[in-house]
Amino acid sequence: MIRKMFAGLLLLSAFSAAAQKEDSLMIRKIADEILTNGKAYEYLKVLCKTVGGRVAGSPQMAKAEAWGVKSLQDAGADKVWLQECMVPHWVRGAKEQAWFTIAGKNTPIDILALGNSMGSSPKGVTAQVMLVNSFEELEQRKNEVKGKIVFYNYRFNDKFVRTFQAYGDASRYRGGGASRAAKYGAVGVLVRSMSHAADNNPHTGAMNYDSAYAKIPAAAVGLKDADKLAAAISSNKNVSVFLKTNAQMLPDVKGHNVIGELVGTEFPEQIITIGGHLDSWDPGEGAHDDGAGCVHSIEVLRVLKAIGYRPKRTIRIVLFANEENGLRGGTKYAEEAKAKNENHYFALESDAGGFTPRSFGFSMKPDQLAKVQQWTDLFKPYGVTELTAGGGGADIGPLGRTFGTPMSGYVPDSQRYFDIHHARSDVFENVNKRELELGAVNMAALIYLIDKYGL
Amino acid sequence: MIRKMFAGLLLLSAFSAAAQKEDSLMIRKIADEILTNGKAYEYLKVLCKTVGGRVAGSPQMAKAEAWGVKSLQDAGADKVWLQECMVPHWVRGAKEQAWFTIAGKNTPIDILALGNSMGSSPKGVTAQVMLVNSFEELEQRKNEVKGKIVFYNYRFNDKFVRTFQAYGDASRYRGGGASRAAKYGAVGVLVRSMSHAADNNPHTGAMNYDSAYAKIPAAAVGLKDADKLAAAISSNKNVSVFLKTNAQMLPDVKGHNVIGELVGTEFPEQIITIGGHLDSWDPGEGAHDDGAGCVHSIEVLRVLKAIGYRPKRTIRIVLFANEENGLRGGTKYAEEAKAKNENHYFALESDAGGFTPRSFGFSMKPDQLAKVQQWTDLFKPYGVTELTAGGGGADIGPLGRTFGTPMSGYVPDSQRYFDIHHARSDVFENVNKRELELGAVNMAALIYLIDKYGL
Repeated sequence: MIRKMFAGLLLLSAFSAAAQKEDSLMIRKIADEILTNGKAYEYLKVLCKTVGGRVAGSPQMAKAEAWGVKSLQDAGADKVWLQECMVPHWVRGAKEQAWFTIAGKNTPIDILALGNSMGSSPKGVTAQVMLVNSFEELEQRKNEVKGKIVFYNYRFNDKFVRTFQAYGDASRYRGGGASRAAKYGAVGVLVRSMSHAADNNPHTGAMNYDSAYAKIPAAAVGLKDADKLAAAISSNKNVSVFLKTNAQMLPDVKGHNVIGELVGTEFPEQIITIGGHLDSWDPGEGAHDDGAGCVHSIEVLRVLKAIGYRPKRTIRIVLFANEENGLRGGTKYAEEAKAKNENHYFALESDAGGFTPRSFGFSMKPDQLAKVQQWTDLFKPYGVTELTAGGGGADIGPLGRTFGTPMSGYVPDSQRYFDIHHARSDVFENVNKRELELGAVNMAALIYLIDKYGL
Repeated sequence: MIRKMFAGLLLLSAFSAAAQKEDSLMIRKIADEILTNGKAYEYLKVLCKTVGGRVAGSPQMAKAEAWGVKSLQDAGADKVWLQECMVPHWVRGAKEQAWFTIAGKNTPIDILALGNSMGSSPKGVTAQVMLVNSFEELEQRKNEVKGKIVFYNYRFNDKFVRTFQAYGDASRYRGGGASRAAKYGAVGVLVRSMSHAADNNPHTGAMNYDSAYAKIPAAAVGLKDADKLAAAISSNKNVSVFLKTNAQMLPDVKGHNVIGELVGTEFPEQIITIGGHLDSWDPGEGAHDDGAGCVHSIEVLRVLKAIGYRPKRTIRIVLFANEENGLRGGTKYAEEAKAKNENHYFALESDAGGFTPRSFGFSMKPDQLAKVQQWTDLFKPYGVTELTAGGGGADIGPLGRTFGTPMSGYVPDSQRYFDIHHARSDVFENVNKRELELGAVNMAALIYLIDKYGL
């Protein structure tokens, strides 16, 4: 036992000496390059301001793909290509309208149809509104649902310091609320936005219909208007809501994963995938979600090239086609990798925004994680203070399930994410240049270490 | 040696068990209260929107003091009082004007007179401009300075990940640049703003004249205009600048530290001071600097009261009168404490903005720091991941120098701070509610632990 402990200590201290010094200098070089000559912020500006929101299947999708190709070439990729995949084609249509009515007086409410939802009839739907605070309440009161518009007023739980936990908790109302209400005869649903923002912007996002029930219209409501509606309902017996949404689901169309590579010098067959998703919801510019992840990934390639680091393994940047409402890009990428019998060594995803760095989460074997965690101190000067178990991302998920590829997700600070997530406010102006850049610094540092030492 | 180590381990594990459990529950209670019923954000909104920028001696100073008294009473202080102190009375006067001229063509530049600087003559000053990148360059070219306006174009160093290091590095040009140029006959100075913002807002801040030289006008230039001016100078031999500032220093006036207390139950004579500064520069609303520190401090008192925690020691919240251009508030507080022979047990300052938590820095004896560092894991769920040596704050500095009081400074993430510091953009809208609240959570947790366990 003692011997084992000493062997472990020796291993640690062997890494700790000369290697740590060399690595800390290399990471300093990476940071200096990104913090002074970084291109992530400029790339993101072009994506946000010349393409904007880019739902799968939209004309902006093609423009975003062209931006991706150009940016990867500009960053210095050895080769850049498009990987075709079919994507869903949901269109929002004309701007939604909604109001609630008490005694003939209409009060408008700010809504956004949920992604994948079907529009109301062209004339809209008017019905008495029924507020429920949870699915449990819906079940208890299921006999009252018929013919009504159900308003899920489930609150985003501010007590979760890690805001993604609040999102995981609340987003089931967005995802499954329509069909659960339609089951009991509801004619539409409104969902309180999954956010703790101080503004009134509604937050859209994907929903899915259960094919057993009617496909009723579904929309997210801004927080202030949700409170206003809830207050109206609590003090009036008869509140009706008018809801008109204009969305439709068209047949699938061709989209593409945009891929760029630096070919490895020693183990070119070992592929390290780094990515974010290129699609976004349409109300904003998809700046944090997930323009940030795209430019983080491109910047990793750019900085390695710029400082003259030739990776031993192949570094492959993937801008995934369709995360938001189908995960078709990530699915296709893994399918093709399997068909080609590729060797997927490691995968890293950035899809939690361009905020200041906090940590990386890892899904890999315990001995691999232990090895990675030895590097913790190398990240601390750049804001990543923890390397923790558990993590990855939606787009690299299929790769992990197909090959058991070790995976990681970049974890920036999450406090501001749900202020802007899937809302009009997810725009370039809400991304801070240095916070964005530090994400790329830490991601590049991780890729450098994994490429150098292996897992 | 082995015995010593074991004793140390036992001490650690003694704390680690039941106590940690109880403490983690108490801190969870603090966090729940602040994240769901917190008042810091609302207090800050009132300060920013009904008072706004509040330079010492201004009419807004008195309004801010009244806000402080009211907020501390609202938060539940046992008593609230004003501590008088004389403060400098610098007034900016009418809006500054500046442009540079090449071949008769004027290009306006956005400037702000530096705090404490004297205005130009009422007609303004026009002179050839001389760009220097450093004091070293000024010294080398001292024979060229006479009759010119010196433009210090020293760049904020983006390579410092901790942005306060870049500020420490660059701010000497703002503080001492005017007199160093006046020594060689300059008639005015422009200083590149201490910022890495992507906008063009100039960033003001304190300067000081060396009484041996002429008190020439001095102003900060926005970054885009600084680049424009530098480019103009590099491609033209003869660039002149017109500069008109209207500031003056009036006689000192009465101001006040605003103080509120929760009296300790066991050791009321042991005072724990928690504070930020109430004054701010005038262009913005002093939201992060240091409205955030004021409401952080008030919220610590409020939450302890709200959850029914009666401190053993006296918790004293101080909103210091004049940090920005004189430190008169902090100085006065320590003087009076000494005159009254008070027992100052610990002091905590928040003056680095209302951003997401990172760490606390401590100036105290090594054994005290070691004790405090045992609590690190209690903070981690709330974003403070490190408790480090070295720290405090300007306003509690005199207390430390007078009594050797152990001190701490709250350290939020610094990436966005110099985007808004001393600029028009330091407004309420640039403060995130949850980031602000988490600062108060961690500060209250620290105060709870120090009150409970002592140092």
